[in-house]
Amino acid sequence: MILKWQVAIIAPNVPALYESHFGVPMAGAVVNTVNIRLNAQAIAFLLGHSSAAVVMVDQEFFPLAEEALKIWAEKAKGNFKPPLVIVIDDENCDPKALRYALGKGAVEYKKFLETGDPTYAWRPPEDEWQSIALGYTSGTTASPKGVVLSHRGAYVMSLSSALVWEMTEGAIYLWTLPMFHCNGWCYTWTLAALCGTSICMRQVTAKGVYSAIANHGVTHFCAAPVVLNSIVNATPEETILPLPRTVHVMTAGAAPPPSVLASMSEKGFRVAHTYGLSETYGPSTICAWKPEWDSLPLEQQARLKARQGVRYIGLEFLDVVSTQTMEPVPADGKTIGEIVMRGNLIMKGYLKNPKANEETFAGGWFHSGDLAVKHPDGYIEIKDRSKDIIISGAENISSVEIENTLYMHPAILEVSVVARPDERWGESPCAFVTLKPGVDKSDEGRLAEDIMRFCREKMPAYWVPKSVVFGPLPKTATGKIQKHLLRAKAKEMGPVKLSKL
Amino acid sequence: MILKWQVAIIAPNVPALYESHFGVPMAGAVVNTVNIRLNAQAIAFLLGHSSAAVVMVDQEFFPLAEEALKIWAEKAKGNFKPPLVIVIDDENCDPKALRYALGKGAVEYKKFLETGDPTYAWRPPEDEWQSIALGYTSGTTASPKGVVLSHRGAYVMSLSSALVWEMTEGAIYLWTLPMFHCNGWCYTWTLAALCGTSICMRQVTAKGVYSAIANHGVTHFCAAPVVLNSIVNATPEETILPLPRTVHVMTAGAAPPPSVLASMSEKGFRVAHTYGLSETYGPSTICAWKPEWDSLPLEQQARLKARQGVRYIGLEFLDVVSTQTMEPVPADGKTIGEIVMRGNLIMKGYLKNPKANEETFAGGWFHSGDLAVKHPDGYIEIKDRSKDIIISGAENISSVEIENTLYMHPAILEVSVVARPDERWGESPCAFVTLKPGVDKSDEGRLAEDIMRFCREKMPAYWVPKSVVFGPLPKTATGKIQKHLLRAKAKEMGPVKLSKL
Repeated sequence: MILKWQVAIIAPNVPALYESHFGVPMAGAVVNTVNIRLNAQAIAFLLGHSSAAVVMVDQEFFPLAEEALKIWAEKAKGNFKPPLVIVIDDENCDPKALRYALGKGAVEYKKFLETGDPTYAWRPPEDEWQSIALGYTSGTTASPKGVVLSHRGAYVMSLSSALVWEMTEGAIYLWTLPMFHCNGWCYTWTLAALCGTSICMRQVTAKGVYSAIANHGVTHFCAAPVVLNSIVNATPEETILPLPRTVHVMTAGAAPPPSVLASMSEKGFRVAHTYGLSETYGPSTICAWKPEWDSLPLEQQARLKARQGVRYIGLEFLDVVSTQTMEPVPADGKTIGEIVMRGNLIMKGYLKNPKANEETFAGGWFHSGDLAVKHPDGYIEIKDRSKDIIISGAENISSVEIENTLYMHPAILEVSVVARPDERWGESPCAFVTLKPGVDKSDEGRLAEDIMRFCREKMPAYWVPKSVVFGPLPKTATGKIQKHLLRAKAKEMGPVKLSKL
Repeated sequence: MILKWQVAIIAPNVPALYESHFGVPMAGAVVNTVNIRLNAQAIAFLLGHSSAAVVMVDQEFFPLAEEALKIWAEKAKGNFKPPLVIVIDDENCDPKALRYALGKGAVEYKKFLETGDPTYAWRPPEDEWQSIALGYTSGTTASPKGVVLSHRGAYVMSLSSALVWEMTEGAIYLWTLPMFHCNGWCYTWTLAALCGTSICMRQVTAKGVYSAIANHGVTHFCAAPVVLNSIVNATPEETILPLPRTVHVMTAGAAPPPSVLASMSEKGFRVAHTYGLSETYGPSTICAWKPEWDSLPLEQQARLKARQGVRYIGLEFLDVVSTQTMEPVPADGKTIGEIVMRGNLIMKGYLKNPKANEETFAGGWFHSGDLAVKHPDGYIEIKDRSKDIIISGAENISSVEIENTLYMHPAILEVSVVARPDERWGESPCAFVTLKPGVDKSDEGRLAEDIMRFCREKMPAYWVPKSVVFGPLPKTATGKIQKHLLRAKAKEMGPVKLSKL
């Protein structure tokens, strides 16, 4: 897969980043939004990998870009062709940062726009399969892969995204979700199609979200479960309730714990739970709500909503298949298989990575790497990432189910469960826990015992974590918990001894 | 263009007609919805032209179908291959009609369904450009042409139609618009995509519309201007007001008179004005409403809304071009050109009609045959059909503009203006008028003078109709006024004499 030419953009959710989703493709180029939480080394890799012709960078991130360019130049040696560097001014930033960038020869964004030809007649792509965007996976496990998206896919996704979410003309959308994440799940383009309004946020805080809802008429926003968590646990000073209108929230990235969903709903947010990957333009399934569920107890509603649901209207094929035979699993809510997909909402492929493409598209399906069951009503529910399943005494244990239960514990803010080597069972569950502010942390032993007792009441004995570790959780640049680091840590801790039983 | 095999359906808006929009394409066939207002001769023509393999017919229309089949068989002589005839039962009909059809060997619809294979695995079309539907134009001027629509076009239209009209999941749609009219402007498929509800109506009356709104939760319906007219002029016994909720109404087919739009709005209907043709899957433009227009006087709002507007999100290209040079006309609200279009929402072509296809797609554009101006805000406004323009003393007169003014006259229910030969000016406007019920019709001469005086106050002198004729207006099977018949009638009346001046 060869792309024509790329424009890389390193910026938080500022208007120029939104504009780049139109200006860059209309100029015939491919927009590559770069995760601003990456380090210079990682950015250097992807600029080099995609041969960026232009680098647009928010003034705050100019030093990061500068370092990345330096590393790229060093690695490429004689082959380095310096890109055009454009710096984005933002009145919310220290003007010194802009002056520094200009001193280093960067062109200011608005000045650059003035050099444009006002009579330029933009043309639609000659072929709808032409690439529109490139985005690198956050790489929880391996080195980042460049996901290439097409005009056609982005188009179908943009329309689908409005339809699945009751988003109509004139929607007012808060940019909590980074636009560098699958082009903001394609809502960049959806909003244009709906003549919607974008409210940009440099930094996401619970206070900022409540304030934008109160002051800017926000009707919709997307957020990772970690943001929902912070909204639910915001202090009274940060919170503005009741909400002035129903606010639609779309969440994805991991199954949000039922307790968080229930609390959001109590506050008046209408949460749509979706599931997808960078490779699928953002969400590809939604837990479509059925009116008859309204009368169920709130916790049962939250449990139903925690399911990943049914395919997006724009996604042609979705199934859960046996990892052995590729045959569809029965819709029994029990048999675990891999989620596979086909159709318009699947990426063109990974840039310059034939091996990964071959693996990912084996058998003519896109392999998500996520393990799920299919319920009798056709809704799918993720049980684990392939790598996250815990195998204890030949039994599969879903780390996600243990986490969902642990989130109901009153002292727990965040939790991640991984496999720890176990002398008797091979592996056993190990819970890494961040406690809520205000919880007395003086006696960790007593807290751990309390948590285990809590679990024993709610799950099979062999699911109960044998180890509980307290502290902050390592996260990727997009806020996903890095289970592979926790897995490594659990391994370092050594196996659970037989004597512990 | 060769189609695989066709299923013709002759039925009013009954559930079986809706179902055929899914069952027929899923069986790999093309759905051909037949206008039930056509006569046997016309139906015989189109069944033969499309070589229908199956004819599904509502029991009320069985005798019509029977006669059409007889004519077809006679004309085709030895080449006639009798189609499978399926009769649709409807509890709202006289059971004698069903018995008659069964006696003639027709298979009952539900019985036919029972012969299906429950394990049949439907397949999506191998090629998205494969045909999904065939529909014959109403033929105001020439013999009917078979418009062939593709799966791809129907898909893009179905999603677009929801987005332009604030139609969200669970919409409740009233079938006032015949499904045989461009497959109900593709709302058949839109409703499935939105998990919406269809309320079917065998016959459209103002009373039935009000009653469905009051009793079935209707949120949306589509209707030709003639239906809006009957809603606006309904008797108090037929009317149920206030509306229990905002009801979205989409209208198209001809610019509805501003007075009708204003009256609908006063009653609480939110009217979206759209424009399109059979060849464009239904509407291709919508007069998208701007919030700043809300504060304008109601009549000015109605005038703005009477414009055809801007292109649908799914239509890639729309322009108004000079009929001489094909160059775009200036956006001055004055220069008249032809509306042309290109993109996904344009038919594949006319069935077995290369000559018509060549003309219609001349220069790589679909030619609508409608004459319009482009306003400075980019909105287009139809001034006339090419054939409907009146040329008086070398000046072009828009018959539509005269009609819009006449609709404001308190005594006028319906009006159509055409050219009548004129000794002095070549042509001059001639108005055919239907009066409202209750208007004193005893002195037509005085009424005609009153109407002309009304016009003189509101338009240039040469626009004022020199002739006013009272009586019912001839209409096509889809309710369009047949201007060519009126034009013939005006010609028969002979030229306006010099002495009349």
